Amino acid sequence: MSEHPVSRFDVPDLDELPDDIRETILAVQEKSGFIPNVFLAFARRPAEFRAFFAFHDALMESNEGLSKAEREMIVVATSATNHCLYCVVAHGAILRIRAKNPLIADQVATNPAKADLSDRERHIVDFALRVAHESASVSDDEIDDMRAKGFTDDEIWDIGAIAAFFAMSNRLANVAALRPNDEFYLLGRLPREH
Amino acid sequence: MSEHPVSRFDVPDLDELPDDIRETILAVQEKSGFIPNVFLAFARRPAEFRAFFAFHDALMESNEGLSKAEREMIVVATSATNHCLYCVVAHGAILRIRAKNPLIADQVATNPAKADLSDRERHIVDFALRVAHESASVSDDEIDDMRAKGFTDDEIWDIGAIAAFFAMSNRLANVAALRPNDEFYLLGRLPREH
Amino acid sequence: MSEHPVSRFDVPDLDELPDDIRETILAVQEKSGFIPNVFLAFARRPAEFRAFFAFHDALMESNEGLSKAEREMIVVATSATNHCLYCVVAHGAILRIRAKNPLIADQVATNPAKADLSDRERHIVDFALRVAHESASVSDDEIDDMRAKGFTDDEIWDIGAIAAFFAMSNRLANVAALRPNDEFYLLGRLPREH
Amino acid sequence: MSEHPVSRFDVPDLDELPDDIRETILAVQEKSGFIPNVFLAFARRPAEFRAFFAFHDALMESNEGLSKAEREMIVVATSATNHCLYCVVAHGAILRIRAKNPLIADQVATNPAKADLSDRERHIVDFALRVAHESASVSDDEIDDMRAKGFTDDEIWDIGAIAAFFAMSNRLANVAALRPNDEFYLLGRLPREH
Amino acid sequence: MSEHPVSRFDVPDLDELPDDIRETILAVQEKSGFIPNVFLAFARRPAEFRAFFAFHDALMESNEGLSKAEREMIVVATSATNHCLYCVVAHGAILRIRAKNPLIADQVATNPAKADLSDRERHIVDFALRVAHESASVSDDEIDDMRAKGFTDDEIWDIGAIAAFFAMSNRLANVAALRPNDEFYLLGRLPREH
Amino acid sequence: MSEHPVSRFDVPDLDELPDDIRETILAVQEKSGFIPNVFLAFARRPAEFRAFFAFHDALMESNEGLSKAEREMIVVATSATNHCLYCVVAHGAILRIRAKNPLIADQVATNPAKADLSDRERHIVDFALRVAHESASVSDDEIDDMRAKGFTDDEIWDIGAIAAFFAMSNRLANVAALRPNDEFYLLGRLPREH
Repeated sequence: MSEHPVSRFDVPDLDELPDDIRETILAVQEKSGFIPNVFLAFARRPAEFRAFFAFHDALMESNEGLSKAEREMIVVATSATNHCLYCVVAHGAILRIRAKNPLIADQVATNPAKADLSDRERHIVDFALRVAHESASVSDDEIDDMRAKGFTDDEIWDIGAIAAFFAMSNRLANVAALRPNDEFYLLGRLPREH
Repeated sequence: MSEHPVSRFDVPDLDELPDDIRETILAVQEKSGFIPNVFLAFARRPAEFRAFFAFHDALMESNEGLSKAEREMIVVATSATNHCLYCVVAHGAILRIRAKNPLIADQVATNPAKADLSDRERHIVDFALRVAHESASVSDDEIDDMRAKGFTDDEIWDIGAIAAFFAMSNRLANVAALRPNDEFYLLGRLPREH
Repeated sequence: MSEHPVSRFDVPDLDELPDDIRETILAVQEKSGFIPNVFLAFARRPAEFRAFFAFHDALMESNEGLSKAEREMIVVATSATNHCLYCVVAHGAILRIRAKNPLIADQVATNPAKADLSDRERHIVDFALRVAHESASVSDDEIDDMRAKGFTDDEIWDIGAIAAFFAMSNRLANVAALRPNDEFYLLGRLPREH
Repeated sequence: MSEHPVSRFDVPDLDELPDDIRETILAVQEKSGFIPNVFLAFARRPAEFRAFFAFHDALMESNEGLSKAEREMIVVATSATNHCLYCVVAHGAILRIRAKNPLIADQVATNPAKADLSDRERHIVDFALRVAHESASVSDDEIDDMRAKGFTDDEIWDIGAIAAFFAMSNRLANVAALRPNDEFYLLGRLPREH
Repeated sequence: MSEHPVSRFDVPDLDELPDDIRETILAVQEKSGFIPNVFLAFARRPAEFRAFFAFHDALMESNEGLSKAEREMIVVATSATNHCLYCVVAHGAILRIRAKNPLIADQVATNPAKADLSDRERHIVDFALRVAHESASVSDDEIDDMRAKGFTDDEIWDIGAIAAFFAMSNRLANVAALRPNDEFYLLGRLPREH
Repeated sequence: MSEHPVSRFDVPDLDELPDDIRETILAVQEKSGFIPNVFLAFARRPAEFRAFFAFHDALMESNEGLSKAEREMIVVATSATNHCLYCVVAHGAILRIRAKNPLIADQVATNPAKADLSDRERHIVDFALRVAHESASVSDDEIDDMRAKGFTDDEIWDIGAIAAFFAMSNRLANVAALRPNDEFYLLGRLPREH
């Protein structure tokens, strides 16, 4: 639909890519119906592409401890505070779908304090925002406070690691001016999509 | 030497680790004379460990475009602004060694504007700090300005990607309260070490 | 659809209201198909209600100088930076409709620097954000620069006044925790609505 | 006395103005002995003028709940933090008169934490400054805390609304570089004026 | 007039003080008609008292290069940004007297950008505020720019040193909650005082 | 060793200096083995030189209340937050020597929250950083809290005064681009030096 560039940096043709990367991309296209631009933009750097998506999947594709919807809430909250258009729009869509809630992404992106969150979700988002903004001062007391609220060490690690991973991701996308695909904006907003 | 914990989170025993991870760690120990604590702390999560170090090495172990010393300057400057004790101390040591300059790491960490940098180094550090702090507003004009100063697109990507990678790394280390090994503090400060 | 309260403060019943206010509200309901919550929340204070909407309409219901879409862009950009959930969601819908662009509101709210704006729109949004954040340092030079870019004094006043009006509006809505009606989230996103 | 311009924007002649606006202005002049510049600068926009002063009077001319002196304290504290010269000087004068205290305005403008305030006044000013700076994070707990300190919902609304109204007013005055009349500086400082 | 304490810390009696300090204080009282509270509060520490006022006088009691009024402008502008009640009120009085201008101190304290300053005064105040807030990034180019505007190295040093001295002074006064004498508020505001 | 200038401003020759200042400098050289650059740079202004070092010695050369190592911790923590290269490097050396700890200065400079501090040291550093950054809001409650933690009023004054003195010192050094002597970087890092 739009004719704006995907990235500030050159994007390679699919047929120039190493086989494993082209196959990953085609598999995503098969599943989503389109190729999310992050795959095209990062394909410029095969070694980084492999490490980036391996790291991403290790953090985001698990339901152990944090649910997938909780993981996406962390992404949307921290990406919004970092003003990363790609991540807010793309992961906003995923969050709507995973949380089965068409309103939640706009709420979390605009003002998490006013979003319809459970207490557990609020603790997750608040801690993630601490990591996004002020990780240097995260104290032993705060870690203990999270434990007292019922979070395991693996859950605390996951919140911190997802906030940290998107601190990276948001900066890469911002430097590249990575453009979200138009398809993401409407995903998960209509009843039939759930 | 010190008896302080390596991390806020449990650190696995070497012999519990997957073979590839244990071997990576032993190879580092062989080369450095000690095991940098980041390897122990991240071994808790094998998939993340593999992706993290693959990403790290893709960005830091190249001399194409940016020199290794320039890459380490980015790490020290952005880690200092993020108040990451581990990264400033450990990469400060590596920077001193790679730049063959015992003063440069303390200068870059304390106030890059007062460090003994060439014009090229100063442009690199300034752009890296923009990415660390305000990536959302990095504009087309700034990218063009870097190109006009003689940087290739691959070099600009590298500066952005290294600043972004350590935005992640600093946050992970801060959440874990990752402790730098005592050995790092003195490395590269004495003439005989070069 | 949702059962969350409209406001932290009591909301009066329609039939307790002064006639002119009830009639205003019913006219909006007739036109929009629902009563935007801001009308219910502010009805608590009839004198403020009348002044607020008179001011709002004087600034927003004109096409002289700034177009209505340009006016809504100012609202969405400044309300996003003030994290006002009500204003971003409600005026995001109006912006989509007035600009006939289903993507623009999410772009402007998340990162105006990455939004699909014309040069004129970008100058408008940039000046509005200066007023939102740093009005104290707006200088004669900046006003002259806006004039040099082709803006009339009345247009400059309008940009400043709309940014200022929503500085008020955002704070009122934030203190009241004013909830956007669920209907706003989807408005202007689907082709048939234009 | 001074020859500096009243505003960056043209100021209309009194005899060009709609009758109601001219009469309002002449009535103020009659009462104060001079025409406060805000009336001249805003007369440029009759509809906004009417709404602005109607809103202002609804918030500031009441003694119900908050006293008039308490209302002016909110204005001075928030206008100082927004660096609005007109509002600090003009409302500083009104505060001195209403509080019958020649020192209070300079104290509240410079550092409210060091001003001679009662506990109730301090709670009012602290909450107003929260609204001025960080309304997005005002929480249910803070509202409840204000209630526990004895404030009614109408008083809490008033504090928020006055801080919000001057968030607007300060921005308008800053964009226009609205100049305080020289007369305001000394008002309320001398014993005979009370 | 007021019964509020001079300082959070004990203030010694005049007759307990070393002779030189008591004589300094009595000489000031003789000249001003009252003892400015800073003399009483700092008398608690004789060695610091002597060094503080020697430093102060070296910087403030000269007319070489910067005029005394220009020096006081630096004090008022930087003390206001540091929210030091004592220094703004006391040095505001001195500024009004030295500049023979009853409006200037309130203007400079509230918003220097809107104060009635000459170009030279504006450069002085702007550079002083850079030193107050962001001395770390003051660059060679800025120093050269000041030289190009006609400032000698001694004048640049003076601006920096006065801004720096009051960075100290403001913090000491803020920690001690040093109270300005009531007499200062009105000094220099009435025609007969000049 | 290095050929970089000591300061942005001219540095006088030793034999042009007033006798007392030259003697002070030669005595320091005798004791330290080199002349710390701060003595050369400040000699440009004899009256300020005398007051500066008298003030410095009054605050730093005492072991009453705060130990000398505790005093140096305040200097390193606040100078790091002000990005003063000279003070961090020079006082970092003194801190290592006085605390007999080769790691402590880099820890305190990079992230005091992660430094190996006792509870008492942590309270000292935290209060000093409050004074460095936000002295305006230091409240009676915080002073009482320090008293409750066992600090005397003289100790609280000392923490505040040292943080304040280096707020000045850091700004002077930053404006002058005062260069730390190369000798400082390694001092106190090797076992034999203690």
